Amino acid sequence: MHKITMLGTGLIGMFYTVTLLGNRSRDSVECVYSRSKENAEKFADEWGIPRSTDDMAEAINDPDTDVVVIGIPNYMHLEAVKMAVDAGKAVLCTKPLGRTAEEALQMMELIEKAGVFGGYLEDLVYTPKTLKALASVRSGALGKVLWTRSRETHPGPHSDWFWDKEKAGGGAIIDMGCHCIEIGRNFIGKDIRPMEVMCWADTQVHPIDAEDHAIGLVRYDSGAIGQFEVSWTFRGGMDLRDEISGTEGTIWLDHFLRTGFEMFTAVGSEGYVAEKAEGQTGWLFPVGDEVHELGYVPMFAEMLNALDEDREPMETFYDGYVVNAIIDAAYRSVATKQWESVELEVWRGKEATTVAGGGFNDYDETFYLVKEETMPDGRRKIILKHKKTGSVEQRILNRLG
Amino acid sequence: MHKITMLGTGLIGMFYTVTLLGNRSRDSVECVYSRSKENAEKFADEWGIPRSTDDMAEAINDPDTDVVVIGIPNYMHLEAVKMAVDAGKAVLCTKPLGRTAEEALQMMELIEKAGVFGGYLEDLVYTPKTLKALASVRSGALGKVLWTRSRETHPGPHSDWFWDKEKAGGGAIIDMGCHCIEIGRNFIGKDIRPMEVMCWADTQVHPIDAEDHAIGLVRYDSGAIGQFEVSWTFRGGMDLRDEISGTEGTIWLDHFLRTGFEMFTAVGSEGYVAEKAEGQTGWLFPVGDEVHELGYVPMFAEMLNALDEDREPMETFYDGYVVNAIIDAAYRSVATKQWESVELEVWRGKEATTVAGGGFNDYDETFYLVKEETMPDGRRKIILKHKKTGSVEQRILNRLG
Amino acid sequence: MHKITMLGTGLIGMFYTVTLLGNRSRDSVECVYSRSKENAEKFADEWGIPRSTDDMAEAINDPDTDVVVIGIPNYMHLEAVKMAVDAGKAVLCTKPLGRTAEEALQMMELIEKAGVFGGYLEDLVYTPKTLKALASVRSGALGKVLWTRSRETHPGPHSDWFWDKEKAGGGAIIDMGCHCIEIGRNFIGKDIRPMEVMCWADTQVHPIDAEDHAIGLVRYDSGAIGQFEVSWTFRGGMDLRDEISGTEGTIWLDHFLRTGFEMFTAVGSEGYVAEKAEGQTGWLFPVGDEVHELGYVPMFAEMLNALDEDREPMETFYDGYVVNAIIDAAYRSVATKQWESVELEVWRGKEATTVAGGGFNDYDETFYLVKEETMPDGRRKIILKHKKTGSVEQRILNRLG
Amino acid sequence: MHKITMLGTGLIGMFYTVTLLGNRSRDSVECVYSRSKENAEKFADEWGIPRSTDDMAEAINDPDTDVVVIGIPNYMHLEAVKMAVDAGKAVLCTKPLGRTAEEALQMMELIEKAGVFGGYLEDLVYTPKTLKALASVRSGALGKVLWTRSRETHPGPHSDWFWDKEKAGGGAIIDMGCHCIEIGRNFIGKDIRPMEVMCWADTQVHPIDAEDHAIGLVRYDSGAIGQFEVSWTFRGGMDLRDEISGTEGTIWLDHFLRTGFEMFTAVGSEGYVAEKAEGQTGWLFPVGDEVHELGYVPMFAEMLNALDEDREPMETFYDGYVVNAIIDAAYRSVATKQWESVELEVWRGKEATTVAGGGFNDYDETFYLVKEETMPDGRRKIILKHKKTGSVEQRILNRLG
Repeated sequence: MHKITMLGTGLIGMFYTVTLLGNRSRDSVECVYSRSKENAEKFADEWGIPRSTDDMAEAINDPDTDVVVIGIPNYMHLEAVKMAVDAGKAVLCTKPLGRTAEEALQMMELIEKAGVFGGYLEDLVYTPKTLKALASVRSGALGKVLWTRSRETHPGPHSDWFWDKEKAGGGAIIDMGCHCIEIGRNFIGKDIRPMEVMCWADTQVHPIDAEDHAIGLVRYDSGAIGQFEVSWTFRGGMDLRDEISGTEGTIWLDHFLRTGFEMFTAVGSEGYVAEKAEGQTGWLFPVGDEVHELGYVPMFAEMLNALDEDREPMETFYDGYVVNAIIDAAYRSVATKQWESVELEVWRGKEATTVAGGGFNDYDETFYLVKEETMPDGRRKIILKHKKTGSVEQRILNRLG
Repeated sequence: MHKITMLGTGLIGMFYTVTLLGNRSRDSVECVYSRSKENAEKFADEWGIPRSTDDMAEAINDPDTDVVVIGIPNYMHLEAVKMAVDAGKAVLCTKPLGRTAEEALQMMELIEKAGVFGGYLEDLVYTPKTLKALASVRSGALGKVLWTRSRETHPGPHSDWFWDKEKAGGGAIIDMGCHCIEIGRNFIGKDIRPMEVMCWADTQVHPIDAEDHAIGLVRYDSGAIGQFEVSWTFRGGMDLRDEISGTEGTIWLDHFLRTGFEMFTAVGSEGYVAEKAEGQTGWLFPVGDEVHELGYVPMFAEMLNALDEDREPMETFYDGYVVNAIIDAAYRSVATKQWESVELEVWRGKEATTVAGGGFNDYDETFYLVKEETMPDGRRKIILKHKKTGSVEQRILNRLG
Repeated sequence: MHKITMLGTGLIGMFYTVTLLGNRSRDSVECVYSRSKENAEKFADEWGIPRSTDDMAEAINDPDTDVVVIGIPNYMHLEAVKMAVDAGKAVLCTKPLGRTAEEALQMMELIEKAGVFGGYLEDLVYTPKTLKALASVRSGALGKVLWTRSRETHPGPHSDWFWDKEKAGGGAIIDMGCHCIEIGRNFIGKDIRPMEVMCWADTQVHPIDAEDHAIGLVRYDSGAIGQFEVSWTFRGGMDLRDEISGTEGTIWLDHFLRTGFEMFTAVGSEGYVAEKAEGQTGWLFPVGDEVHELGYVPMFAEMLNALDEDREPMETFYDGYVVNAIIDAAYRSVATKQWESVELEVWRGKEATTVAGGGFNDYDETFYLVKEETMPDGRRKIILKHKKTGSVEQRILNRLG
Repeated sequence: MHKITMLGTGLIGMFYTVTLLGNRSRDSVECVYSRSKENAEKFADEWGIPRSTDDMAEAINDPDTDVVVIGIPNYMHLEAVKMAVDAGKAVLCTKPLGRTAEEALQMMELIEKAGVFGGYLEDLVYTPKTLKALASVRSGALGKVLWTRSRETHPGPHSDWFWDKEKAGGGAIIDMGCHCIEIGRNFIGKDIRPMEVMCWADTQVHPIDAEDHAIGLVRYDSGAIGQFEVSWTFRGGMDLRDEISGTEGTIWLDHFLRTGFEMFTAVGSEGYVAEKAEGQTGWLFPVGDEVHELGYVPMFAEMLNALDEDREPMETFYDGYVVNAIIDAAYRSVATKQWESVELEVWRGKEATTVAGGGFNDYDETFYLVKEETMPDGRRKIILKHKKTGSVEQRILNRLG
């Protein structure tokens, strides 16, 4: 049972609070901080939180709480982590951890030196679908992962500071690329080193300094590619999908727009439909339970259970640091227009995973097997490559061949 | 915070227990009963439940618990309710409430006379999608509901007693029709009286006495039809879908097979994929989090919150009784091959909701408007019916018409 | 190469003509008839048809054409068939063949006695998906067919006469039930006799005399059920889906609203989106090529090839007659509120297909096998029924069991 | 009416022939060539083609044909085009046009100098869905196109020569990237110049010299990105999808795996399921009519109609040349690991389309409008950027604001 200080009363603070208080929870939010006193009071009133303040230090040092949840803008994370560490409290920080790997590394070192519990609130790795998909991948259902695509696009964030390059640390990449990159990393393997990044970004639609659209490729040491697609220019709601391809299988996840809930209405309804929905009439695609589908419920359960059990959570400050390092490389690549190395001062995974030599399928002593398939007439066709000459040929086998 | 006696250690007992203990819950299961002492002990061990027994009375009268959850075969419900009422405990009973309306009515009267809390564990009304869809329908997004289709089909239940007509009270209708009927009732309006039922049922595949496939239509006083489709002959997994049609809109829900999680695997994985999945390789369609998607999490939260707040839960023993009465009519219809009245000794809804008179759309003083539409060339076409002569005609309007 | 007289210039006449003239066709439409001279001329002009007239006899007796295609209202079919037969021409008639089985039987006898070619233009049996699905079913991929559901619903037809009970011969059942019934019949087997029908119908929304919504069940001699759902009250476009369940498999077809084409637009577009679409903005679901997806292209190809090859087409006047007989029974059932026999004066299929005796799966000499499944822990569970006592029991087997 | 010489009897020759002879076609295939005499004879026999040969010159110079269709391996295209041009015949060439832009340019110049009709058989631009989507985009339904994603992945091609880098001119990029690139170009605008390409490629799975997986980004002069994803490592069938994002809308197309046809079978069926399907049992996703869904039918109709009408077809040799030039840049980018310019010796589109200056939305004289949205409580929030200071701020408006 934990008593929590909540920093932030925006959309993310609201989602976090709904989650922490929902589902017969044993935990409670005891104090809330907002930069605006009015917002803090209103929020406390709405969610039945005993204390509210516009003094961050006061909130963090609240004598009755043991956990600090950081749900405030990116440029304030480092300061909040410092205060929480000084207060000796467990600290759970929203995504991205820092605006840069340098900031993230500082935060990681702060909690590690102090020995306090740190959790990185990367919710999209915790969606029920993602957790089950990860379990399948880890059990080998897809063979070796070759490629992941993680996509988050919508018409743009809700609060002003996201659109401010300085406060946010960037645009769509820092806002949503952090999700997509960590999703890819989880499927490819967190112990596989991210080597280099190629990224395109542009400001296509909005009058802002940061990018509102970007596509990036992260190449891992295993040869796998983690592709991310982020945009604030998308029309039609929030597109939140993942694809994973392996040597033995494929997974497709849709978290938001096509989840088995389809509604046509000529009437519409009042107010809020779903995070980042567009329109109130025609065909709409609500999600059943946003805080669950977006991973908040499983995430806080795992985080607080880890705290209770005195173990590391699934997503740590170290993970947040690696993600920031990949994002740094992405921004460099946008500028240089070439692949850029991921600079990781601290690397805790495997050192070299690239397999030396082919590992190709032998057909016999002379040939590799390139492909085997059934033809329309039911016979089997095999395509072979000569191991020495390199020539490729095909053979048709009888049904029993 | 509640301490619970769990009756039953089958699939449903397992789902209930996972739910009650999950997600940072403040509640606990303190005692578990199974007809088999071995199963009770094994279950208690697996889920960390302090006490287990094969003596139902002992479990129900456990001095430390205040809530009894009934997850045992249908023919044991009445006896369990009696004991729980005698013990003065809140009682939550799985679906269907009784094998017949008569049994259900007895249970309802028992709890009402004793003044204990009773909850009807109709989980599929509580799925996140259903709850949100119900909110949309109640806010008028679909206009007047005209028709619902609720479908639950799979290759057959897991435990032997389901297949025993006497113990279960029937076959697929009593097992799954209870879900589908109550889903339809919720969308059409619980205060709208179900009038009559037409039902087809047959034993198409299995060597059993009860039906393994049935289709029924429930006609409500509003003119709406609640269609149910249940089968133990379906191939491909568990098909769990709802469709709702209203004068102003449509809702389609898919709870299981097409929820935005698609996996192809040539490898397969060990053991359990999903409730009632078929196969381990090829294209598979897992659900993210079964206990959440099937409504168990929101259901127990609402039930126990209702208990805390001293109010009726969303699904009561009265609802269970109405559902049993509709099922009774369905079985009669199967036998007589005609529509059969729903016999409701106790009716707590509206008395007469059928609207007298048309309420048709006037086009002008002379005509009703039958239809209005845009033609391929962009002009508008209207179809009118003369109020007196009844003749139908069409007119083409200019674009500005 | 055929020269065609087209009767009718409404939506169906347009679809037929587009089809017959499309895709590098060798056939041509040489003469068109409409009740309105103006419409006939306009249509001829638009599609490059040499001759047009408002005199049906003149069109049918056009000396240069050898095929008559009937695309006019239901009440005119019989007269048109008579004239075409008198002219000795091949005749292809739109659906439904007659307003009643009696009318359909007359038409069938007319062409059979005269020995002219007759084709029943049931396009939805010819959709590319349906043709491939039928091939799969016939090759045994679904085992024995147990149930079909065919659904056609939209916000109502385009022309006035559809809404006139007398001219059309009914409402949504005669208009669209004919499609759904024949789809079911094809999957269940055309040689399996339709025995009886249970049907609900109501006029829920429109100011008309005929039904605007109906659900029917057709019971076949094999025990299979062909379910049809038709409505002019549906909102959201045209819902055109089929489901087929067999002992060994399942098929789901969506012909219109979810076919892999999804569009969100904040702009909309001018004019015609798709047959029976609703709305111009938001999420829209166009089909790629309507005349192909709705079966017109494969249908006319098969019909005219059959004519060339002097063989019966896939859909004959006899099929149209059987469909009308089932519809007649459906209307009777609506009135009597009980199952009604299908009266077939002429029956050309099998006489008795109901299997006598169980054909259940033996487990061993003593037991039938009710079900076999894998449990979450990987062990196999079997459920058995004693052949003599009828008692049901379950056994847990080891992995190798 | 055209008489055709078909070069090639592989899968593509078979698809072309099925198409040209299907649907009541007025055209005919009169002569077929294969490198293997036996295959040529067998093919001619199967499809009723009067003449067959293993002498390409003989086939092309067949005195009775006026059109040559090239469906042979990439390295033979140039020679075949030369011969067809010498014979003065119309020539339709499969994709890719050349192995390099240099080859493609030669072919283009050959037909243009000779004045013979040339068509580039890029079928996937002609799928019914693509044609309708292109019409929507051109009518402005998506506003300005910002990004396209075109994906073609499957477990690898059917014939040996595809796997031979020299004969094919590359691997998955040349084989399938040509489709994806031209799809992107069509949506973005064929008159918009492709400027540069960034591409990753690797040989992840097969024992071959060419790439079996690649991702590329093509940047157009308008700022739009045309993304292509190609792979011979995909598991689960053939994944053929397009996504188009514009300032005002979104289009998603699925051509193969999720098109509204879903089948579960425990039995499987004999032989051929669909091009590049995997498996015969479990959940399968056939397409209704492959030659239509993959665009062959509309493509040949448009090509031959263009020939009859003496106009350019939708896809010309020039288009094939531009595609090859983009592919050349992609291969260079793989090698240099940076963006590479698209070298177009011949450019027939617009010269400079990049809009100078922002064109941002003014909110008023002082501010740009960054975003406007409805909050959960129904109020409107606007996010503004100061035109001079660049600072970003948000304002909450009343409902009527």
